[in-house]
Amino acid sequence: MSTHPSHTLADLAERFGLRLRGDGSRRIEGVATLANAGAGQLAFLSNGKYAAQLAATGAGAVILREEHLADCPVDALVAADPYVAYAKVAALFDRLPAAAPGIHPSAVVDAGASIGAGASIGPCCVVAAGTVIGEGAVLGPHCIVGEDCTVGAQSRLVARVTLVTRVTLGMRVLVHPGAVIGSDGFGLAFERDHWVKIPQLGGVRIGDDCEIGANTTIDRGALDDTVLEEDVRLDNQIQIAHNVFIGAHTAMAGCSAVAGSARIGRWCQIGGNAGVLGHLELADRVTITAKSLVTHSIREPGEYSSGTPLQDNRQWRKSAARFKHLDDFARRLAALEKGKNDE
Amino acid sequence: MSTHPSHTLADLAERFGLRLRGDGSRRIEGVATLANAGAGQLAFLSNGKYAAQLAATGAGAVILREEHLADCPVDALVAADPYVAYAKVAALFDRLPAAAPGIHPSAVVDAGASIGAGASIGPCCVVAAGTVIGEGAVLGPHCIVGEDCTVGAQSRLVARVTLVTRVTLGMRVLVHPGAVIGSDGFGLAFERDHWVKIPQLGGVRIGDDCEIGANTTIDRGALDDTVLEEDVRLDNQIQIAHNVFIGAHTAMAGCSAVAGSARIGRWCQIGGNAGVLGHLELADRVTITAKSLVTHSIREPGEYSSGTPLQDNRQWRKSAARFKHLDDFARRLAALEKGKNDE
Amino acid sequence: MSTHPSHTLADLAERFGLRLRGDGSRRIEGVATLANAGAGQLAFLSNGKYAAQLAATGAGAVILREEHLADCPVDALVAADPYVAYAKVAALFDRLPAAAPGIHPSAVVDAGASIGAGASIGPCCVVAAGTVIGEGAVLGPHCIVGEDCTVGAQSRLVARVTLVTRVTLGMRVLVHPGAVIGSDGFGLAFERDHWVKIPQLGGVRIGDDCEIGANTTIDRGALDDTVLEEDVRLDNQIQIAHNVFIGAHTAMAGCSAVAGSARIGRWCQIGGNAGVLGHLELADRVTITAKSLVTHSIREPGEYSSGTPLQDNRQWRKSAARFKHLDDFARRLAALEKGKNDE
Repeated sequence: MSTHPSHTLADLAERFGLRLRGDGSRRIEGVATLANAGAGQLAFLSNGKYAAQLAATGAGAVILREEHLADCPVDALVAADPYVAYAKVAALFDRLPAAAPGIHPSAVVDAGASIGAGASIGPCCVVAAGTVIGEGAVLGPHCIVGEDCTVGAQSRLVARVTLVTRVTLGMRVLVHPGAVIGSDGFGLAFERDHWVKIPQLGGVRIGDDCEIGANTTIDRGALDDTVLEEDVRLDNQIQIAHNVFIGAHTAMAGCSAVAGSARIGRWCQIGGNAGVLGHLELADRVTITAKSLVTHSIREPGEYSSGTPLQDNRQWRKSAARFKHLDDFARRLAALEKGKNDE
Repeated sequence: MSTHPSHTLADLAERFGLRLRGDGSRRIEGVATLANAGAGQLAFLSNGKYAAQLAATGAGAVILREEHLADCPVDALVAADPYVAYAKVAALFDRLPAAAPGIHPSAVVDAGASIGAGASIGPCCVVAAGTVIGEGAVLGPHCIVGEDCTVGAQSRLVARVTLVTRVTLGMRVLVHPGAVIGSDGFGLAFERDHWVKIPQLGGVRIGDDCEIGANTTIDRGALDDTVLEEDVRLDNQIQIAHNVFIGAHTAMAGCSAVAGSARIGRWCQIGGNAGVLGHLELADRVTITAKSLVTHSIREPGEYSSGTPLQDNRQWRKSAARFKHLDDFARRLAALEKGKNDE
Repeated sequence: MSTHPSHTLADLAERFGLRLRGDGSRRIEGVATLANAGAGQLAFLSNGKYAAQLAATGAGAVILREEHLADCPVDALVAADPYVAYAKVAALFDRLPAAAPGIHPSAVVDAGASIGAGASIGPCCVVAAGTVIGEGAVLGPHCIVGEDCTVGAQSRLVARVTLVTRVTLGMRVLVHPGAVIGSDGFGLAFERDHWVKIPQLGGVRIGDDCEIGANTTIDRGALDDTVLEEDVRLDNQIQIAHNVFIGAHTAMAGCSAVAGSARIGRWCQIGGNAGVLGHLELADRVTITAKSLVTHSIREPGEYSSGTPLQDNRQWRKSAARFKHLDDFARRLAALEKGKNDE
């Protein structure tokens, strides 16, 4: 129940390199949408389709692009990219749950673990031998950090995160509840009539500034490591299989999945519930739309898709039934064309 | 290991407004399927295709519709909707794990939390400041309730549920293990060559009588709240992104997902692993079949689908290869038609 | 931080029935890939496409098939199936987190639970009345075992596993973090304008040698049990609904799902994010490719698929738009053919 900070418009302008129009002494106590903001709040206008909301906004001030300034009836902060500027301003008003430095008495921390200065180990955490928790890192309640793991400085495991074993997180990594990192990869050899498990002897390495969503799972490698470079952003319920490599600055939306040993480039964007099969390679700057399945390597940047469009179920049933006969259609079409040409 | 209750058929008939045929003093000690029920058990017949099982049932009594009464060799309770009647009778025989009122000694409850009369806080629960746990609410083992959350009266978090922060649950809400509610929405702004996180400052509001499945995730809003109205039913492993709105009485099957700011109507049914893209609107009483992707708003009630039918892999490969050339087919077909007309 | 074991090549050859070529006294201290292995390590060659790596390998020895022996510049162990042999050798070098027998002081174990000899109950575990933990079973940190559950001998719940209630695990079952077994099935009856919950009174039975992935969910049955026979292998984030039956030796890849009361045969393979609708039956030895949806029962062994191939988004948009008109195409094609025949 922390008291909220407040900042003057002039302070915000200077801090984030924005141009101020209006009363620099106006105090801003929070952020809100154009539609809901009050006099003490700052709103933003990034997507032009909301420009019509400017006229009636009750906001104390608005972050916007130069082009919208003339239409803004209240004070303004002018930014080249209002959404980025908003992100930075809003961070000042974020109310994170408090994390007291030190080890909560209910936590179970092995004597062979190293806990950095200012780190916070929350209630019921379990920290195993051979682990290193960096300076200022926060383990919220119920986090489990298994043997031979490293949590980089200023990283935050929000709550109930499990690092199974041989997991290294960089600095400022943010992991949301329910995430499991370093679980066994799914490796099996078939012997006559049953499965033999392949031991998963590798680890997981996650770069600085990555974010891992709630209930996302990242398996450790079979022999080498599963790797996420820096600034990779994973939404909720994503599955990353063993030995996957994900290049820096790639973002993946919820429920997407990458199968074993696939290699994703940098600055890629993977849509919700999209999938990438194993052992494929995606170049840098590849975008995969939602629910698409990547079945071959992609060498060129660009946007790729699979699937069919939504239809009324009755219409869809007809399309779907015809899909099964496409090869036949193609042959019949060719035959007609041949007949035409032979005439 | 509680002893099971028993009820006479006459009691059940009166309690649930059913018509009794047979021995009202018969004691029922449990429920079972038509195929497996014994003399002390009650079965039900709802789906007509199981009517053939009536003749051989060993059940003590059967709940059924009037139309099947003549074929029933044992005692019966006649209901307009036998499945609904069965649901209510079966609830009498449900054996929920015991939940002793009070706070388990291993729980960590902040002095700034308010715990209602008769509420049960289980082993290893962590309850933060500013939270309100309603009367008779049950937090099973390992639940985490973060700052500024409310759990309504008679709600039950079965076990290992995480409410991150600013989450409000109504009354009689049931949440299954592994669910994470109130995690950060996936909001990012791209600056030059890297991502800047958008703080997620909103909350989550969940209405009375909702049910949230195991390992389901519901993100809190970026500025306003993510909202589920009353009696929304979510199966396991569902992903609800920030600022989604789901109308009352909508049910979603396992592994479905809704992207940010989408608005789903009331009495909708979303099939397993179906998806809804962001910022779309679905009218009331829309049904989406399993694995379909909703890519545009739906204004009319009805059933909608996407995808292709299952085929033998060799046949499917042919259909799939031809799908890539559909535009070419369409042009060639039109050309043939034009040639025909020009003859 | 256990010291690693070492084994001579002669020992390994004898233990696993492999033919040795070279120096039987060579000590092997670990396993690695052909590309990365050093002199004290054993590599393997199973997939012929990596045969070119043999010449330059730094491995002390390689497990391979007879056919590759002549090309191997270092010591070798000859196996009929090198991947299976590798799996068994590698298991000798697996470093599992230590699990001390006995009950950790922070665990909450009901007096009515039975804990087998040599079993290990880790930090913060909660074990309810009526449960039986078998000999040598390991419950890692934060496992919850609800009422009336059985964990078979030598089974291992790695960490943070929840068995809700009425769950029986066989022997040597391995369950990864975040898995929830025995949660309520998703059963609802619709009454006028709202849902009535169907009590889920059954349990879950899981056979010997099964493996359950991280954050996978398996619901308990409505009346009868949900059943996995022996040696079923489930990857991460899989959803198994109530009353599903999965035959022995079936393997399912990540994010796949099976709806209620479906029955899957033995030795099936279900690809990543594939789905099976409710109440269907799949024969033995059925393979479903990734992201396919099974919408009807499958009586014959074989491989089955649905979906469309990945395309460049611009091309895909054209294919997708035409898909909606396939029925019209079919009619027009037939009309042209008819016109042709009538000529």
